[in-house]
Amino acid sequence: MDYKSSGVDIDAGNETVRRIKGLARATFTPGVLSEIGSFGGLFSLGSAWRDPVLVSSADGVGTKLKIAFMTGRHDTIGVDLVNHCVNDILVQGAVPLFFLDYLATGRLSPDVAEQIVKGLARGCQDNGCALLGGETAEMPGFYAEGEYDVAGFIVGAVEREHLITGRAISAGDVLLGLPSSGLHTNGYSLARHIVFDGLKLSVDSHVPDLGETVGEALLRPHRAYLPVIKPLLGTGLVKGMAHITGGGITDNLPRVLPEGTAARVDRRSWRTPPLFRWLGESGSVPEMDLRRSLNMGIGLILVVAATDVTAVQTALLNAGEANSMVIGAIEAGAGEVRYV
Amino acid sequence: MDYKSSGVDIDAGNETVRRIKGLARATFTPGVLSEIGSFGGLFSLGSAWRDPVLVSSADGVGTKLKIAFMTGRHDTIGVDLVNHCVNDILVQGAVPLFFLDYLATGRLSPDVAEQIVKGLARGCQDNGCALLGGETAEMPGFYAEGEYDVAGFIVGAVEREHLITGRAISAGDVLLGLPSSGLHTNGYSLARHIVFDGLKLSVDSHVPDLGETVGEALLRPHRAYLPVIKPLLGTGLVKGMAHITGGGITDNLPRVLPEGTAARVDRRSWRTPPLFRWLGESGSVPEMDLRRSLNMGIGLILVVAATDVTAVQTALLNAGEANSMVIGAIEAGAGEVRYV
Repeated sequence: MDYKSSGVDIDAGNETVRRIKGLARATFTPGVLSEIGSFGGLFSLGSAWRDPVLVSSADGVGTKLKIAFMTGRHDTIGVDLVNHCVNDILVQGAVPLFFLDYLATGRLSPDVAEQIVKGLARGCQDNGCALLGGETAEMPGFYAEGEYDVAGFIVGAVEREHLITGRAISAGDVLLGLPSSGLHTNGYSLARHIVFDGLKLSVDSHVPDLGETVGEALLRPHRAYLPVIKPLLGTGLVKGMAHITGGGITDNLPRVLPEGTAARVDRRSWRTPPLFRWLGESGSVPEMDLRRSLNMGIGLILVVAATDVTAVQTALLNAGEANSMVIGAIEAGAGEVRYV
Repeated sequence: MDYKSSGVDIDAGNETVRRIKGLARATFTPGVLSEIGSFGGLFSLGSAWRDPVLVSSADGVGTKLKIAFMTGRHDTIGVDLVNHCVNDILVQGAVPLFFLDYLATGRLSPDVAEQIVKGLARGCQDNGCALLGGETAEMPGFYAEGEYDVAGFIVGAVEREHLITGRAISAGDVLLGLPSSGLHTNGYSLARHIVFDGLKLSVDSHVPDLGETVGEALLRPHRAYLPVIKPLLGTGLVKGMAHITGGGITDNLPRVLPEGTAARVDRRSWRTPPLFRWLGESGSVPEMDLRRSLNMGIGLILVVAATDVTAVQTALLNAGEANSMVIGAIEAGAGEVRYV
């Protein structure tokens, strides 16, 4: 008995590493000191930072992966993962420095692994982030044939004085919502249940309400907000930001609210995109459940002083974001979201 | 249909987060600026560093997880994961700063999640590393009942001038081996195949050759070498280090060898522990395959100048490591490991 017959193919692993190396190298920024293949990835902060705070986050793509499996398209999941991570540290004011991935599968296909890493590399390049390393684990008996899981880990930095904490948020501040590109990476267990178990559709089914196929609608990558928010970092104009992920606005907005405040969200202030309406109606999902599962069309919320709204919207517009919307305000309260 | 009926239980997730918070908080070091629950974890390097290089690594536990599932013991896997990560950055001279985990499961059991995080927290505390955050993903349909996968991400730092790169390694240098505590986290697909498929043993089976049960032998945690290596960091006495993980000495030692060198490893210089002999004999595994799959009793290899061997062994002894062994030397060559 040798190692290969036990289900682990070290040579396939090495082949995968070879293919990944080139993709990762293309993302390297001046801070990167090592190439993939050392035990750890090396990154130098350099001398540009005065009092840097490292901001880090770990995330997965959740069951959106099943859509990738069903469509056989594996080169966008990496974009989802990177963008999700980028947004999670962006809300505290940080710009990304480097990213590492963990890719686990039952039997390693160098082709699929390469597609996944292509997405990771594209996501990293789009955000000026180095794909510094990662682990590719072949785990026989853990994942169904053709399936895998992938997790991402990001480290960014922000000058301590420019940390966005939400502490200065107070009653009267305004909530600015930025559109999402779709479900992003949350609510896929619910969406799959509605679409595949309930409606009995396939990823190739064309949905008239959406003007596209199920696969196209559900696989659309998670949007990164760094490009449009970057000009606002360090300006002091943004008091707090919430990345709307699992739990929706209902659970994520309270994470930035200081004691004694609550958020009023006006549901009529933006048009719920067709995908969310279609899912809610098709699954007869109670509105409150829907709001606690899906982003409902708002992927990022900024909290800004009422007097700064115009300045912030102008900055967003200049950065290419023409669709920021006032969606509510801060009130006195106990950390809750009040939908009106 | 609500979100819970689709297989995702947000409340169980929140309960898990509550339990994890206290465990993580106990690991917090002075650099930690935030508590778990923000979008990203905040860590300040502080002013103690002159020209820090960040060293990071991502890893999993591999199919050792199956042993945890079989024994129902979930509080040691976290120690494995942290120690593996700690060793991976240690070999470049870095001390750990913070750690994040990714825990994915089909249906979340707050009890099991708590056990896993207990292990992570203990591993972090043992290494002076903050458990800064993580992601707990409930992914219905991805993992078998009672199963999960867990990945770890570590960030450490080293002064640039104290980076251990292996570049100064030259012919005549000596290889010092440090004992492993068992299989660590590699070779489990092979070991499980031999023990469970071949020998038809269970985790409760007592193995006379080992003087313990299969479960005890196979679940023993991966050893962290930081406590015994720490006094050597920054001394310049260690030219290179290799963490012996998947691929064994055969694949890992070459990762630190500069061009024009090779490693001669004397297999008679240490006694192969009973677990490795028993696995090899029980599975009739060719010796070369065994050496490319398992650590064979050596978990870390230091490359030191011949004139520094005594000083290094004395430092190791003073730090509590009495069993370092000269296991070979550096020769001219093309990056290969030559077993003699």
